[in-house]
Amino acid sequence: MRAVGTERDRLTVPQGLAALSLDALASVAYGPEAIVLVLAAAGARGLDFTLPVTLAIVVLLAALTFSYRQVIAAFPNGGGAYAVAKAHLGRRVSLIAAASLIIDYVLNVAVSVSAGVAALTSAFPSLYGDRVVICVAVLALITGANLYGVAESAKVLILPTVVFVVAVFTVIVVGLLRSHPVTAPTPVGPATETVSLLLLLKAFASGCAALTGVEAIANAVPTFRKPRVVRAQHTELALGGLLGSMLIGLALLIGHFHVGPNSTKTVLAQLTEAAFGDNAAFYVVQFTTVALLALAANTSFGGMPVLTSLLARDHHVPHVFALRADRQVYRHGVLVLSGAALVLLIGAQGDTQALVPVFAIGVFIGFTISQVGMVRHWRQQRGPGWRGRALLNGIGAVLTAAATVVELIAKFGKGGWLVFLAVAVLVLLFEAVHRSYAGIGRALRVGEVPGPPVQERSLVVVPVGAVNRLTQEAIGTALSLGDEVRAVTVVHPDDDEGPSESHVRQAWDAWHPQVPLTVLSSRSRSLTRPVVDHLRELAAAGEHERLVVLIPEMHLPHPWQRLLQNQRGVLLDRAVRRHTDAVVCRLRFRIELPR
Amino acid sequence: MRAVGTERDRLTVPQGLAALSLDALASVAYGPEAIVLVLAAAGARGLDFTLPVTLAIVVLLAALTFSYRQVIAAFPNGGGAYAVAKAHLGRRVSLIAAASLIIDYVLNVAVSVSAGVAALTSAFPSLYGDRVVICVAVLALITGANLYGVAESAKVLILPTVVFVVAVFTVIVVGLLRSHPVTAPTPVGPATETVSLLLLLKAFASGCAALTGVEAIANAVPTFRKPRVVRAQHTELALGGLLGSMLIGLALLIGHFHVGPNSTKTVLAQLTEAAFGDNAAFYVVQFTTVALLALAANTSFGGMPVLTSLLARDHHVPHVFALRADRQVYRHGVLVLSGAALVLLIGAQGDTQALVPVFAIGVFIGFTISQVGMVRHWRQQRGPGWRGRALLNGIGAVLTAAATVVELIAKFGKGGWLVFLAVAVLVLLFEAVHRSYAGIGRALRVGEVPGPPVQERSLVVVPVGAVNRLTQEAIGTALSLGDEVRAVTVVHPDDDEGPSESHVRQAWDAWHPQVPLTVLSSRSRSLTRPVVDHLRELAAAGEHERLVVLIPEMHLPHPWQRLLQNQRGVLLDRAVRRHTDAVVCRLRFRIELPR
Repeated sequence: MRAVGTERDRLTVPQGLAALSLDALASVAYGPEAIVLVLAAAGARGLDFTLPVTLAIVVLLAALTFSYRQVIAAFPNGGGAYAVAKAHLGRRVSLIAAASLIIDYVLNVAVSVSAGVAALTSAFPSLYGDRVVICVAVLALITGANLYGVAESAKVLILPTVVFVVAVFTVIVVGLLRSHPVTAPTPVGPATETVSLLLLLKAFASGCAALTGVEAIANAVPTFRKPRVVRAQHTELALGGLLGSMLIGLALLIGHFHVGPNSTKTVLAQLTEAAFGDNAAFYVVQFTTVALLALAANTSFGGMPVLTSLLARDHHVPHVFALRADRQVYRHGVLVLSGAALVLLIGAQGDTQALVPVFAIGVFIGFTISQVGMVRHWRQQRGPGWRGRALLNGIGAVLTAAATVVELIAKFGKGGWLVFLAVAVLVLLFEAVHRSYAGIGRALRVGEVPGPPVQERSLVVVPVGAVNRLTQEAIGTALSLGDEVRAVTVVHPDDDEGPSESHVRQAWDAWHPQVPLTVLSSRSRSLTRPVVDHLRELAAAGEHERLVVLIPEMHLPHPWQRLLQNQRGVLLDRAVRRHTDAVVCRLRFRIELPR
Repeated sequence: MRAVGTERDRLTVPQGLAALSLDALASVAYGPEAIVLVLAAAGARGLDFTLPVTLAIVVLLAALTFSYRQVIAAFPNGGGAYAVAKAHLGRRVSLIAAASLIIDYVLNVAVSVSAGVAALTSAFPSLYGDRVVICVAVLALITGANLYGVAESAKVLILPTVVFVVAVFTVIVVGLLRSHPVTAPTPVGPATETVSLLLLLKAFASGCAALTGVEAIANAVPTFRKPRVVRAQHTELALGGLLGSMLIGLALLIGHFHVGPNSTKTVLAQLTEAAFGDNAAFYVVQFTTVALLALAANTSFGGMPVLTSLLARDHHVPHVFALRADRQVYRHGVLVLSGAALVLLIGAQGDTQALVPVFAIGVFIGFTISQVGMVRHWRQQRGPGWRGRALLNGIGAVLTAAATVVELIAKFGKGGWLVFLAVAVLVLLFEAVHRSYAGIGRALRVGEVPGPPVQERSLVVVPVGAVNRLTQEAIGTALSLGDEVRAVTVVHPDDDEGPSESHVRQAWDAWHPQVPLTVLSSRSRSLTRPVVDHLRELAAAGEHERLVVLIPEMHLPHPWQRLLQNQRGVLLDRAVRRHTDAVVCRLRFRIELPR
């Protein structure tokens, strides 16, 4: 969800399609391939089932499209699986939905990046050996762009989306019109198993990866231009229509050209080459695919911070994830997402089809939860025609639940268990964080009116070095703040080059600022230890109720000049805050230098 | 220089040899090879000059040994080239000495690591392809050990040093007693040029890399046990004798076996194999060489912080380099050294002999400067027998100056210019830092007695969130510190989920802490911006002379619980200190949570 600005900045239908549906549309780059890869085990006979399996997936897509059309109407403030489940299915189920969504965001990044790199290496096979390095580089690029806040504009995204969709349809039409392929695709190998129901279910389960991303529009209704619900619904229908047509078209073309799987050339690349030959058009399609998949990976970086900020507001993840304003704080979500995707990319050695089988599991858990939640929603509302609506979402729920079960059976051994484990671990973490925040709330007595604030007697301790303008400023400030002020300094009697105690005392007495100086003599070379020990003694003596340490520092205007400052202030600040209960104040004394 | 402890912790002669001469002794692993590599261009006829060239180097070593024996007596507090030049040749020359020393420290790390890895790959040729990766790993290991403060004890170093020296002498004796090599070394290829004076000078210049490190003892006289000067002088003589004998012995053995250069097997490895055969003894020598070279690289990590801390005390590098006490501050020197060595190692692709030719240049600049300085020293002192001493150092100065000129002529095109450039850039940087510190000193009026500190009227501003125990504590502390206290809070009217202005006011009025609350309404999502703007307005209004911001934060005991804290405090602290002159105080409120 992008930052909500003025009405003019919000999305129209084509912009919504580009900004929110790009990862769903881009999944045609790996979805059909996932089907072919499974069916090829049964040879040419198996590949004949590409179209039927694809049609089953498109039926599911239709159910999802109409179901989500209703979600949009029911949750105009953004109806992600987490929000729907929170409203209608309880906290625990909502956390399962959130965990599966987070896993999807991570998998979307990993799958999109590796599929994009596969499209690139299909065009330039010599790069195939370096695919993991290229994947990491692309991921680093996307991460960097998000860390430094390159906001993509929906308008900018329209062009690559349109080019990609047009290119895929052109491949389909040109290909189907040809009686023979220009360049022969990889033939299907001999069958190693027969066409069984399990094989078809596996193909269906893997191909469902093509449906990932269809929920994104429903999550982001507030980003549409008015009338928001209508525009979002139109966008959802357009997405369903486009994605369904592309999937059916590609399935027809796969059957038409008898395309088999090839580890170094994607199915989409083979179809493109078969339709156009190895010419400029082929490279245009490949480059568009690369660009679109990189942008598809990028959509996770937009979605994950919204989800984590919702979770943070509900105290399920650390509150830093809810700090959306200051750019550096977006970092948390971006870095977590990027780090997890990096692990997956390296673990899978940049192989898309090693990741795709598990991708759909998390997505379908989320689909099922939101559909079930919607049935509950209509039953509670009981508005006009609620039965029809509940039935539609109910059909969606049954189909997605069935698909989830199929996926689990088909892929549990192939990494599906890992998704389960990850969901369980995430839910336990959410719960642990929630418990901790509840404890903090009790400690802060949130909800109660606290007693009146108590004014106490204060002692300000000022660690000083030499006597100079900075010291003058620091003691003046301390006098303005405290009921009593004491200066402290540390001397190292073992250090021949440093100042001696008598020398320091002499300089102080020459100044006579009416503030007592305590000279701490230390044999250890540590600067912070003697000060911390002294503060603890003062606190233990208990003469003052409020102990404050005022650390004076010089401040130089230019960043490179700041290298000239020593880090005493930083070290002292850290040590005092770690080891004592004193309030730490830091005073900056600005120094203007020439240049 | 290690931390100076009690007298018992200080060095005896054998310990001094291990702790301070290890890198000089280890240079026999690459010095003779550098000579062979140059002379082999003239074929077998060229290699016959290995012994004469080595003898010339040993003459230079003798001159240096006796010269440094005098430096030790004259500068018992550590007489590195920088100290000698500072005392007798002026600031500018001392900075040139310091720059060349820093370059040496870096080159010593790079050369020792790559030579150690070459010893390893000589034993295991299959690792040769991965030598750059291994170099980086070894460097990372040494860096890590130094960052985490693994203090090496001189006693621990004695064993590998003794084993190495004994091993090298055993190779020499066993080898010279054999009439035929057990394993034939690489034959010398055909001559591509004739034996010319330039070739011999080049061989001499490259071989001088074997003399690096002989100045280390003179730099560290205070680390010896009493009588310090005598022990240090004995150590210097022992080093000169051992190193000279090893160099001559190895030169004899090279001639005896007619060893030619080999890119994957070091000359020392070839000699060892020729003397012992490919058996356990060979591997023992190789492993000892690897260990000794890793330790030799480590000596730079001991020496560089001492030099940079001296430079920092003289205001030539940032003062952080002088902060030796807190472990994390050693980091600056360690990381700069390690980063520079990394660049060299990768740039040279882990090839020792690409680095050795320039290594000696920096060292000899330092040698020459300190010898010239010593001549001045004796002339000023005019003690009994000063002419003899001045003559000895004068001979040293002439020889090292001649060697420096030879090296420059022989290697200017082969990277020598880079050393020159680096020295020039470092000297300019030292000067720039010095000028800046002079400016800071003027701004702080260092040396003057400042006026009396001025007590002023203070306003403490407390940014608050909700009303709870933390807020109570913060307002109480603010009342203890300021003449006036005001609370501020930020609301975002565009944010449906956040608290509204009226809601915040209501909670505040219910508490009625007798402190006014300013509600800042902001359309931007930034938390810090409105607070900073408000502080600037308060400062511009000029009603208060001392503006203080008190930032309350909760503090949780366990590190993982700290992940639960939001970073508002950090962000606000940074923003306020960057954009205003307000004093920033941070109050920690400790919260104890179960677990």
